[in-house]
Amino acid sequence: MPPTKPPTNRQVTLAARPSGMPKESDFKLVETPVSQPGPGEILVRMSYVSVDPYMRGRMNDVKSYAPPVQIGEVMGGGAVGRVTASKNPQFAAGDYVEGLFGWQQYAVSNGKGVRKLDPALAPVSTALGILGMPGLTAYFGLLEIGKPRPGQTIVVSGAAGAVGSIVGQIAKIKGCRVVGIAGSDQKVAWLRDELGFDAAFNYKTTKDYAATLHELCPNGVDVYFDNVGGAITDAVFRLINVGTRIVVCGQIAQYNAEKPEIGPRLLAHLVVKQARAEGFLVFQFASRYAEGFKQMADWLKQGKLKYREQFVDGIENAPRAFIGMLQGENTGKQLVCVAPELS
Amino acid sequence: MPPTKPPTNRQVTLAARPSGMPKESDFKLVETPVSQPGPGEILVRMSYVSVDPYMRGRMNDVKSYAPPVQIGEVMGGGAVGRVTASKNPQFAAGDYVEGLFGWQQYAVSNGKGVRKLDPALAPVSTALGILGMPGLTAYFGLLEIGKPRPGQTIVVSGAAGAVGSIVGQIAKIKGCRVVGIAGSDQKVAWLRDELGFDAAFNYKTTKDYAATLHELCPNGVDVYFDNVGGAITDAVFRLINVGTRIVVCGQIAQYNAEKPEIGPRLLAHLVVKQARAEGFLVFQFASRYAEGFKQMADWLKQGKLKYREQFVDGIENAPRAFIGMLQGENTGKQLVCVAPELS
Repeated sequence: MPPTKPPTNRQVTLAARPSGMPKESDFKLVETPVSQPGPGEILVRMSYVSVDPYMRGRMNDVKSYAPPVQIGEVMGGGAVGRVTASKNPQFAAGDYVEGLFGWQQYAVSNGKGVRKLDPALAPVSTALGILGMPGLTAYFGLLEIGKPRPGQTIVVSGAAGAVGSIVGQIAKIKGCRVVGIAGSDQKVAWLRDELGFDAAFNYKTTKDYAATLHELCPNGVDVYFDNVGGAITDAVFRLINVGTRIVVCGQIAQYNAEKPEIGPRLLAHLVVKQARAEGFLVFQFASRYAEGFKQMADWLKQGKLKYREQFVDGIENAPRAFIGMLQGENTGKQLVCVAPELS
Repeated sequence: MPPTKPPTNRQVTLAARPSGMPKESDFKLVETPVSQPGPGEILVRMSYVSVDPYMRGRMNDVKSYAPPVQIGEVMGGGAVGRVTASKNPQFAAGDYVEGLFGWQQYAVSNGKGVRKLDPALAPVSTALGILGMPGLTAYFGLLEIGKPRPGQTIVVSGAAGAVGSIVGQIAKIKGCRVVGIAGSDQKVAWLRDELGFDAAFNYKTTKDYAATLHELCPNGVDVYFDNVGGAITDAVFRLINVGTRIVVCGQIAQYNAEKPEIGPRLLAHLVVKQARAEGFLVFQFASRYAEGFKQMADWLKQGKLKYREQFVDGIENAPRAFIGMLQGENTGKQLVCVAPELS
């Protein structure tokens, strides 16, 4: 009998730093032998790998809140999988887990930052979406930075994305009027007809954002949850009320800019309106994640939150999924399905 | 004997809405008979009239937090004078008062919003500066919006102006490292040598603001008190730390722009640094003015605060004083001396 071929780990590495929108050739699929866990470690076989906007920043060689991915290194990011071997007493083979395992089929981890999942609660893929980092981002960003009050008007850009679609629904739970901005008529219909947004519009077919917003927000804008930046944000600034909170979650419209983007200067609006623009990263609420997970799970069980996931099959297609997400092709959470039979 | 000529009130009115930097011809000096106070009213003869940056906004026909000055109307604004006749039991002839009396020699007021001054406390002109609206703006803006902590680095733009020069001194009282940005070598010397700023630079003779700031703020910027906006602010944004508070008090660099100014988009900095830009108007702290006045007066008596006033003589020269202030000619508080013998 021939010797058993050792299992292979297929990984997506960074091949080149992108200029502008990433291309598939900026990534490289490599195969390495699967590592075995040492003392205290676990081996995880991935079910789902996440692609998120923040990863674009990690591809640039600039200092930020996290170090950049190095050329030749596996792309980092959240993933969900099953423990296939454990030398860590906190995990057992068969456990579903979520952690920063990166774009690969297998990962060895010491268990730090790894969250055990309950597959009875919800499909484990949700640990990368509504019951994961995007869900917590929406929850803490809207409630802690945005501080919406019942009856107030909330505008969300990138409203059909993983974070934006949850932000709008939480704002509805809190009794707000919610207006979403998204990039297709299908997304707009989903927001209005399925998620319960009060209004939404397609920025790709709308000429005058400010006029449209003015019509949809007759009482102005009290909270703006901004995922995109750029011309959409310029328009919203013109409609803010006294005391408005602008929650700066992302600026995806600029992530692929090859040189610094320019636009109208916005700070004077903040003075006149005694308003605030505040950026945040979900990590700053790390001490309260348990509260966020519990509340999101409760709302999900109560049918107060809906979500959509969109899948691409095969780890080799993670770059395509990522690029598509940056181009706005996804509705809801974009995932890469690596080994669905494990979920 | 000929009848006594009734006293004349010389007033400066708005003659035309300025395009760009105001010109003296945008104002008109008119003479009207002095009105007499009715029941509940007082007549005030002005000693000092204030010129402040916010007045530029009131000259435009746009909706803002206060209605615009109408063509032909007396320019509004704070002033200090003496009560010459009173039919209001709260005021007596001879009282020194401060109120929104406008650019004129005499005003009739019902006493609402009028503050009685104690000439023994400090020269009454300070009621328009360090013990007035600019002082409260510095006090509440820095402490309530900026929230500086000992050892932190504070950058102030427009640092030699009425507000900026106080902001820097309060930050020193609070144990901060203070870096000022101003428009002349004389101003820079004043900030460093007399007011105790740790460092300052002249933006008019500095080519690379970011490099200079980087040198003067080796630990980055924790609080930025912004009076000017524009390219100076762009540079400061590049040096903010995690959690930095940007206090947006004014944007004088743009007040005379004939079309919306453009510049690099800044919001992405706020995300990466979990930072905040917050605009404010001193009025939002109206319920706490007494606290602010008391603290500022105490610091002044203790010699912890210094101030400089710059005078132009004659109500007819208020436009020139105002234009000069917009052009950065003043060090400290710019005032118009209307009747110095009354102070």
